[in-house]
Amino acid sequence: MKVGIVMGSKSDYEVVLRVEKILDSFGVDYVTRIISAHRTPSVAEEFASGAEQEGFEVIIAVAGKAAHLGGVIAAYTPIPVIGLPVKSSTLDGLDSLLSIVQMPKGVPVATVAIDGAENAGLLAVQILSVKYDELRDRMKAYKENMEREIIKIDAEFQNGH
Amino acid sequence: MKVGIVMGSKSDYEVVLRVEKILDSFGVDYVTRIISAHRTPSVAEEFASGAEQEGFEVIIAVAGKAAHLGGVIAAYTPIPVIGLPVKSSTLDGLDSLLSIVQMPKGVPVATVAIDGAENAGLLAVQILSVKYDELRDRMKAYKENMEREIIKIDAEFQNGH
Amino acid sequence: MKVGIVMGSKSDYEVVLRVEKILDSFGVDYVTRIISAHRTPSVAEEFASGAEQEGFEVIIAVAGKAAHLGGVIAAYTPIPVIGLPVKSSTLDGLDSLLSIVQMPKGVPVATVAIDGAENAGLLAVQILSVKYDELRDRMKAYKENMEREIIKIDAEFQNGH
Amino acid sequence: MKVGIVMGSKSDYEVVLRVEKILDSFGVDYVTRIISAHRTPSVAEEFASGAEQEGFEVIIAVAGKAAHLGGVIAAYTPIPVIGLPVKSSTLDGLDSLLSIVQMPKGVPVATVAIDGAENAGLLAVQILSVKYDELRDRMKAYKENMEREIIKIDAEFQNGH
Amino acid sequence: MKVGIVMGSKSDYEVVLRVEKILDSFGVDYVTRIISAHRTPSVAEEFASGAEQEGFEVIIAVAGKAAHLGGVIAAYTPIPVIGLPVKSSTLDGLDSLLSIVQMPKGVPVATVAIDGAENAGLLAVQILSVKYDELRDRMKAYKENMEREIIKIDAEFQNGH
Amino acid sequence: MKVGIVMGSKSDYEVVLRVEKILDSFGVDYVTRIISAHRTPSVAEEFASGAEQEGFEVIIAVAGKAAHLGGVIAAYTPIPVIGLPVKSSTLDGLDSLLSIVQMPKGVPVATVAIDGAENAGLLAVQILSVKYDELRDRMKAYKENMEREIIKIDAEFQNGH
Amino acid sequence: MKVGIVMGSKSDYEVVLRVEKILDSFGVDYVTRIISAHRTPSVAEEFASGAEQEGFEVIIAVAGKAAHLGGVIAAYTPIPVIGLPVKSSTLDGLDSLLSIVQMPKGVPVATVAIDGAENAGLLAVQILSVKYDELRDRMKAYKENMEREIIKIDAEFQNGH
Amino acid sequence: MKVGIVMGSKSDYEVVLRVEKILDSFGVDYVTRIISAHRTPSVAEEFASGAEQEGFEVIIAVAGKAAHLGGVIAAYTPIPVIGLPVKSSTLDGLDSLLSIVQMPKGVPVATVAIDGAENAGLLAVQILSVKYDELRDRMKAYKENMEREIIKIDAEFQNGH
Repeated sequence: MKVGIVMGSKSDYEVVLRVEKILDSFGVDYVTRIISAHRTPSVAEEFASGAEQEGFEVIIAVAGKAAHLGGVIAAYTPIPVIGLPVKSSTLDGLDSLLSIVQMPKGVPVATVAIDGAENAGLLAVQILSVKYDELRDRMKAYKENMEREIIKIDAEFQNGH
Repeated sequence: MKVGIVMGSKSDYEVVLRVEKILDSFGVDYVTRIISAHRTPSVAEEFASGAEQEGFEVIIAVAGKAAHLGGVIAAYTPIPVIGLPVKSSTLDGLDSLLSIVQMPKGVPVATVAIDGAENAGLLAVQILSVKYDELRDRMKAYKENMEREIIKIDAEFQNGH
Repeated sequence: MKVGIVMGSKSDYEVVLRVEKILDSFGVDYVTRIISAHRTPSVAEEFASGAEQEGFEVIIAVAGKAAHLGGVIAAYTPIPVIGLPVKSSTLDGLDSLLSIVQMPKGVPVATVAIDGAENAGLLAVQILSVKYDELRDRMKAYKENMEREIIKIDAEFQNGH
Repeated sequence: MKVGIVMGSKSDYEVVLRVEKILDSFGVDYVTRIISAHRTPSVAEEFASGAEQEGFEVIIAVAGKAAHLGGVIAAYTPIPVIGLPVKSSTLDGLDSLLSIVQMPKGVPVATVAIDGAENAGLLAVQILSVKYDELRDRMKAYKENMEREIIKIDAEFQNGH
Repeated sequence: MKVGIVMGSKSDYEVVLRVEKILDSFGVDYVTRIISAHRTPSVAEEFASGAEQEGFEVIIAVAGKAAHLGGVIAAYTPIPVIGLPVKSSTLDGLDSLLSIVQMPKGVPVATVAIDGAENAGLLAVQILSVKYDELRDRMKAYKENMEREIIKIDAEFQNGH
Repeated sequence: MKVGIVMGSKSDYEVVLRVEKILDSFGVDYVTRIISAHRTPSVAEEFASGAEQEGFEVIIAVAGKAAHLGGVIAAYTPIPVIGLPVKSSTLDGLDSLLSIVQMPKGVPVATVAIDGAENAGLLAVQILSVKYDELRDRMKAYKENMEREIIKIDAEFQNGH
Repeated sequence: MKVGIVMGSKSDYEVVLRVEKILDSFGVDYVTRIISAHRTPSVAEEFASGAEQEGFEVIIAVAGKAAHLGGVIAAYTPIPVIGLPVKSSTLDGLDSLLSIVQMPKGVPVATVAIDGAENAGLLAVQILSVKYDELRDRMKAYKENMEREIIKIDAEFQNGH
Repeated sequence: MKVGIVMGSKSDYEVVLRVEKILDSFGVDYVTRIISAHRTPSVAEEFASGAEQEGFEVIIAVAGKAAHLGGVIAAYTPIPVIGLPVKSSTLDGLDSLLSIVQMPKGVPVATVAIDGAENAGLLAVQILSVKYDELRDRMKAYKENMEREIIKIDAEFQNGH
């Protein structure tokens, strides 16, 4: 099981790191690339066209502003593409979000929240867990753990309140 | 391979029908339910909690306005949930979109475009195709066919222009 | 008279504290819980289902981003639910606001301003004061005091100007 | 138990009628008035100042555009005020919503969805039910009925599908 | 010639000061008051009802969030009211702007830019200058001076570039 | 007393007619022109530069989309300029509104609601009434009449309800 | 001189026709193609990569929703690309506009108004007129004619008013 | 080949400097002016009317808020005008963007991203390169260089990862 993470600019790595941490914690392999839909279009095409052959099962595309990366990659590959919109310096990420989520008929990009790095990673895991039972188990454990943690925080808060 | 389609109100069926047609064309089984996160919360919980056990591998949640359905279902199941925001009578679907895509850390919903019914279906197929090779093949054929069609329309347009 | 305050994450406590101060100043009892609609959905359901039985008369739900907490709680209880949208790190709280206020037909959530913590507390008091005359009296005193204060500030400002 | 419904213009009656139907179905008395915050400010002041004395326990203010009616009434009365924003001819009701929900500290207006007439009525019932047990019972029945209806629609849909 | 400046909260004084400086520079008298449409509604009504009698010829209302101050004052007085929307802590002033500018038919508020303090002052001067010739002359001088200044800055910039 | 009404395109006349009706009802003279800031810039400049000389005391500029007309006219004349944003075919008039109201420091345009034709006319009357007592009297009568009408509509509604 | 017009879907032809009419009226040759950035990405790449060689001097890309067409073409060609955002069925074209105009550093797309077909054509002519003097002359004539027309409409309106 | 850069206020120079750097790197001459559409309208008119005669082949207009500068200049000149919207202190640049891009039929302004200074410069170069072959060559080199750089950053990132 292998995930491709593609970011449009190295400055997005702060966000991408949080995706990687999630994948690490689930024991999912990934390759992280810096590929721009607009500045390295041929690399994007090459990467996307060969992604299935290379063994990638899910791709996470991370970009901001007029964020075409997810759409461009999804155009060239049949494998599922997750779009992670990055908060831009103006318009608060609304441009990134709409550029990714509003894909026209025929080529979906599975979009998560603006700067929702962890959720991009978790969605990749959920998609892979359709095939890999061990990931499904780890996802269940993750959810149970998350629940326990909040319950514990709540309990401690009640006590200290 | 089985997809669960859940709509918040029967009035969403016009949109859901387009999801079903895509799944039909790929030979993917589905069950369509009318379940409201707010009016039948126990049914939603029961459906989501049992979804994996029932053999569902992906769920598509279709809702408008303060569209909590996808999030509520994703809270109770480890399987991937696709959120399809429906255009609302006011605010042009922006409320539906933000209520679905802006999910907080820990529980992603894979969001597609407002009223993007076909893409919700195609995304479900792409997710299933991680496991089922025949769906991957059909998805490739779908993409090639789509490409051929546009090329043909373009050619005819050139001739007639 | 007892109010339940529920926040989706401990990080919302800064806002919740301002709600508590209002309730304290009116002598209204409250219980504050950390419950997430998405990460601890069963706790949310349990809390909401039992809220009336537990003696809660109003619930204040505090959440940000795709803020489903108010709607989820309102789904399970007949008592009035106040929704307090929290400013999110992107989109300036518009997502929180729309996710809370745009509730579909059948299950209202009484929404106050983004980060409008004091008003959430005051609205709870106003709702309780339909039943409890002493709260109505205190609310009148609060309003009169607020008026006096502004009049005093204005007078001082006139003098110093 | 008595609710005051105030609309800013007679043209809002189409929306108000849906509020009245909800209140009728719960057996809640109401008085409906046409009062404009801007064109009949003295009437608004007089109505709001005397509302408690007149026996009103909740007020529903219905207005569009720069919708000040709810805020103006809430300024003059200690009883809870529900704000129902009406979709305007431009900006799709966003102006109405923000003018009502974004009330500054000290004077809350309990806001429901744009054109959310039924929810304004239901919220009034929920608020009154803090005091009147029979309304609480009817609200529970309403919720159970709503649930049964959706379950029935879902079952019929399953059968016919 | 006398202008009334009314701000909804003392915290708006930073903005109001810039209005006052403009009026000072034109030799226009003004009275600055702290009056809240929601917290001191009777003072607002009294002020607005008596404004013409008191000799005010223009009123500038400064407020943020659900900014009803301008509309409330305009409801009670026939003299022109200028609305100055203040940037709010959330939504970047869009709520203030829409609450002021989208006034319904019959009661206009002359709205300037969000935080556009100088322009509120200048608009007051322009309105007064319909009557007072000396203000018209000063306004022309102001415009000429502004033009000269930019031309000088441009020339210096050309030289130093 | 004379008002200049300038519209950017003849298609805006439907809106302008409502401005004219208000001015007619107050007995205010006006000249209506079709002048485009972008297509007839020299005419705009000529009109604005000569407006004061021509005896205009207020100008109402009516335009949609990137509505520069008000700003361009205000740049060339010291007399007050009212901006009336027209609902555009896309974006619901938000572009028109922001292009008019967000004027930079130094050159205000007194903005009314999107398609708020009557209010543009009324604001012109209010501005003129700073100078002309008879207009002040008519404005008071207008407000009283408006009040009486709503009170009558309300009374009839009460009776028929 | 040759312009390439590319539309993402044949349904955009209604808008494209208005672009063609402008180019026809200026005697500018053009080729109109139906090419989708997402459904025929290889055709888009081939078209864009060869555009300069084929003699195209400007390209106009017409697309809606998550409109990547302009950006994708601009990625592969050094010639200027004009982006024409098409009003989408939801969100009123805001998604199209932001997806086109908010291009990241390095690859501009010259954006015109939503559905601003004529302006896309005129901008192409203006760009070509940097090189072709006869187009510059025609553009001047076009502007003069446009001015004359408005002046005539204004004069007729004055007479008939 | 000569570009005119016009900024509405000297405070925009921080953004303009990035435009100049791009033009410098391409060896394109430019003149930078501080001209305000509203404060120095006659200078704007004079500059724009004479721009072609002065040898300017493209103009870049830089402005914020109700940014009329680009439209006003485009009204007076047949040469292509690029609009660069500057992020404003409120509304995050949405007002600047819409005021520039939503130009009505007949007078286009080629708009780039909010604060997209480099792209404004690159678009000017692309427009000039329709005429000047050496600029076309430099633009190709720029694009190739940009591609190489990202590829190199990606390679280094792969190695260090």
